[in-house]
Amino acid sequence: MVEIPVPQHMTAEEFRRHGRAVVDWIADYWERVESLPVRSRVQPGEVRGQLPSTPPQVGESFDAVLADLDTIVVPGLTHWQHPGFFAYFPTSTSGPAVLAELLTSGLGVQGMLWQTSPACTELEQHVLDWLAEMLALPEKFTFAGTGGGVIQDTASSAILVALVAALHRVSGGQVARDGVARGRYAVYTSTQAHSALEKGVRISGLGTSSIRLIETRPDLSMDPDALREAMKTDAVQGIIPVMVMATVGTTSTGALDPVEPIGRICREYGVWLHVDAAYAGVAAVCPELRWIHQGVAAYADSYATNPHKWMLTAFDCDACYVADRKALVGALSVLPEYLRNTATDSGAVVDYRDWQVPLGRRFRALKLWAVIRCYGVEGLRTHVRHSVALAQQFAAWVAADERFELMAPHPLSLVCFRLRGPDEPNQRLLEALNASGRIYLSHTVVRGAFTLRLAIGGTATRYEHVSAAWDHISRIAAEG
Amino acid sequence: MVEIPVPQHMTAEEFRRHGRAVVDWIADYWERVESLPVRSRVQPGEVRGQLPSTPPQVGESFDAVLADLDTIVVPGLTHWQHPGFFAYFPTSTSGPAVLAELLTSGLGVQGMLWQTSPACTELEQHVLDWLAEMLALPEKFTFAGTGGGVIQDTASSAILVALVAALHRVSGGQVARDGVARGRYAVYTSTQAHSALEKGVRISGLGTSSIRLIETRPDLSMDPDALREAMKTDAVQGIIPVMVMATVGTTSTGALDPVEPIGRICREYGVWLHVDAAYAGVAAVCPELRWIHQGVAAYADSYATNPHKWMLTAFDCDACYVADRKALVGALSVLPEYLRNTATDSGAVVDYRDWQVPLGRRFRALKLWAVIRCYGVEGLRTHVRHSVALAQQFAAWVAADERFELMAPHPLSLVCFRLRGPDEPNQRLLEALNASGRIYLSHTVVRGAFTLRLAIGGTATRYEHVSAAWDHISRIAAEG
Repeated sequence: MVEIPVPQHMTAEEFRRHGRAVVDWIADYWERVESLPVRSRVQPGEVRGQLPSTPPQVGESFDAVLADLDTIVVPGLTHWQHPGFFAYFPTSTSGPAVLAELLTSGLGVQGMLWQTSPACTELEQHVLDWLAEMLALPEKFTFAGTGGGVIQDTASSAILVALVAALHRVSGGQVARDGVARGRYAVYTSTQAHSALEKGVRISGLGTSSIRLIETRPDLSMDPDALREAMKTDAVQGIIPVMVMATVGTTSTGALDPVEPIGRICREYGVWLHVDAAYAGVAAVCPELRWIHQGVAAYADSYATNPHKWMLTAFDCDACYVADRKALVGALSVLPEYLRNTATDSGAVVDYRDWQVPLGRRFRALKLWAVIRCYGVEGLRTHVRHSVALAQQFAAWVAADERFELMAPHPLSLVCFRLRGPDEPNQRLLEALNASGRIYLSHTVVRGAFTLRLAIGGTATRYEHVSAAWDHISRIAAEG
Repeated sequence: MVEIPVPQHMTAEEFRRHGRAVVDWIADYWERVESLPVRSRVQPGEVRGQLPSTPPQVGESFDAVLADLDTIVVPGLTHWQHPGFFAYFPTSTSGPAVLAELLTSGLGVQGMLWQTSPACTELEQHVLDWLAEMLALPEKFTFAGTGGGVIQDTASSAILVALVAALHRVSGGQVARDGVARGRYAVYTSTQAHSALEKGVRISGLGTSSIRLIETRPDLSMDPDALREAMKTDAVQGIIPVMVMATVGTTSTGALDPVEPIGRICREYGVWLHVDAAYAGVAAVCPELRWIHQGVAAYADSYATNPHKWMLTAFDCDACYVADRKALVGALSVLPEYLRNTATDSGAVVDYRDWQVPLGRRFRALKLWAVIRCYGVEGLRTHVRHSVALAQQFAAWVAADERFELMAPHPLSLVCFRLRGPDEPNQRLLEALNASGRIYLSHTVVRGAFTLRLAIGGTATRYEHVSAAWDHISRIAAEG
């Protein structure tokens, strides 16, 4: 018999008691979050300054953690679930998502291999096939076709793995073996695309000089003619075009690249087309918005959208699809002895470790499953339509006020606008709004002009919040 | 007024009701998990076969999700929290970790920038400084020094960002700009190291041919003399050594590379030293086990250990430290206009997006904070000591049984053993054990021989489980 102390864990009864307290805490938080300042008012170092400099030697009750959560942590948070949070894009969560995440955490299983928890892999395959159907994505992106879907943490990781797969395909596997050759490859995206591609080319060893930022048309979408010119110029110099990233809903203004003509050029040059629809893609759950995916079915090699942004699924949940799962798995599969197993050897299963950067993975499919089931397709459509309608209403108010100008098309739920004239009053307006604690907006630069972004889609945001936001913006602007 | 339906979300009262049900479900699951077969018995496709082929059009109650969880999902799970789970390394979770993850999910904040939720960043900085102190890691890895810690999802991601930072430093930033040059760089690790490095060199564009797998000494630790020879050979050919990865506790057998002599060689050649202590590092919470980190303080440029493995923190939580935060941030920082903000511009804050592959990030520090507070340093020591004592007891039983042989040193909680003689009876033994549903072990190959791995450290594992495991192994082996 081992003569050493046995660790004391929280008992089942304690877990039930503290668990109920935490559930109530969250329900209370969602009910009161509107009364808190959206953007935290703490100064750098203020949170750390309230924490003991050394960890406790002896364990404390979970109640003590909850108490400090209230007094130290909450004042240091910017409240992404506040109905007045209009910055960036929303990270919309929901009851079903949070409860499913609790289950994920309590089960504590690991889906790196099919074998290490079959349901973790198969439920993910299944709900991603469901989601493909819901968004009218092509069969090639499903497991019934040649491809399939996988949950990544973010769209950045989706871009990185797409890039690695594209390099694998274009080099016939040589990059995986010998690495990239400096200066040989080029990657294309619009000047308006997300910085994640720049991060991706840095991480993947291509370097930022491999990126060609393609000019945009007046609506801030990629100009296919300019893309073709850039590819032609590279090809003449013996530079190999590896990947084009088209964006369906840019972060800056929500611009929609014309995937179809871009795809035709990719096809012509044999280039991998990745479609980054991180924010906007889920809008295609509504049949009347499926036009945003025009060209995806015919031309995209990979595609990603984030149910954690505008589909109530709680961060992190990026749905990433590839048309040819062999390219992705070929690029990322390494099989050491300690991971070998009968199921993998049989070839009858998917091992998701080969579809992502990390080896281990959480059971994230549970939350996507719970959200789809508890809202149903119609419930999710209602959420998207509601956000779009609110954004159209907001844009109409802006358009009707001659002090302001709209800076970009706004077919979905993001509105970019500014006070006419110089930047400085706009910068002051934004800072005043955000300092008020009632709403939180972010900014971008459109055609050189400092521009405010108001992104709708948070779970709790209703007409009255958007209406109040406009009243507030209008009044602060008047006070100048 | 917008004339469209408002989305129907779960009400606060429904959330409280379902939340209590889920908390109870988890408490019940932990109490009954021992009665379930550890390894799932489903066949490929069996879980998917029970799910409807199309998503529901209309929302269902969360009760329906819970019901299907019981009937469809649970039989498809391999139960990582089962006390008889001895495969791979444990993913140990605990009440405080799960409750903190629930809070993380309910708060739904995003820590990509300090500004987007200051407490999310500052609590992470703080608890990682705490953890550094708890593991007696050097000040250079803390924010009081030149470096700092960050939570990555896994040790694989820690290796990848370390590699990218090492490339950035060795090339003076040229790799970030121009990419890697094929064949110019080499990376070193032992033959026993984790396959994550191979995945990392593929993703980072170096290719697998850049890896030098260094031979090991009889205890399966890296041979520093062989490392020096390999580096010398490369240097003569003009190949630049970029990074050495030393492992403190290999996945295969728990071997401990001699960090100090390896570090001296790295210093001599100006090479980045990454220490992968994914599994074993947290053992250093016990003063009597701190010898495993010998050499880390003096020589490591980066270091990672996984509180989600053996420190009760719930996947995913890899604590990744760098000695020079400028190298990491320099490699990964891209600042588009829509992410600019006053706090970032001031230079007074940490923006963790520059420390990782993704942009967005969950508030994972909460669970590490909760675990450290609720267990206290002493409670975590008890957990580690308990696992080590159980492993020593198990190894003693194996050593006393002449049918078996121990295949590697076992100073911590992993024991590698086999039936003397050919592989085939060992393969049959493993399959019979795992098919029994009572315990789950994994395997590796040591010096060419098929070897069983028994890894202790799960939250629920006690003396009686290890004792029963040995009885079971002994009996099945006797039955041949």
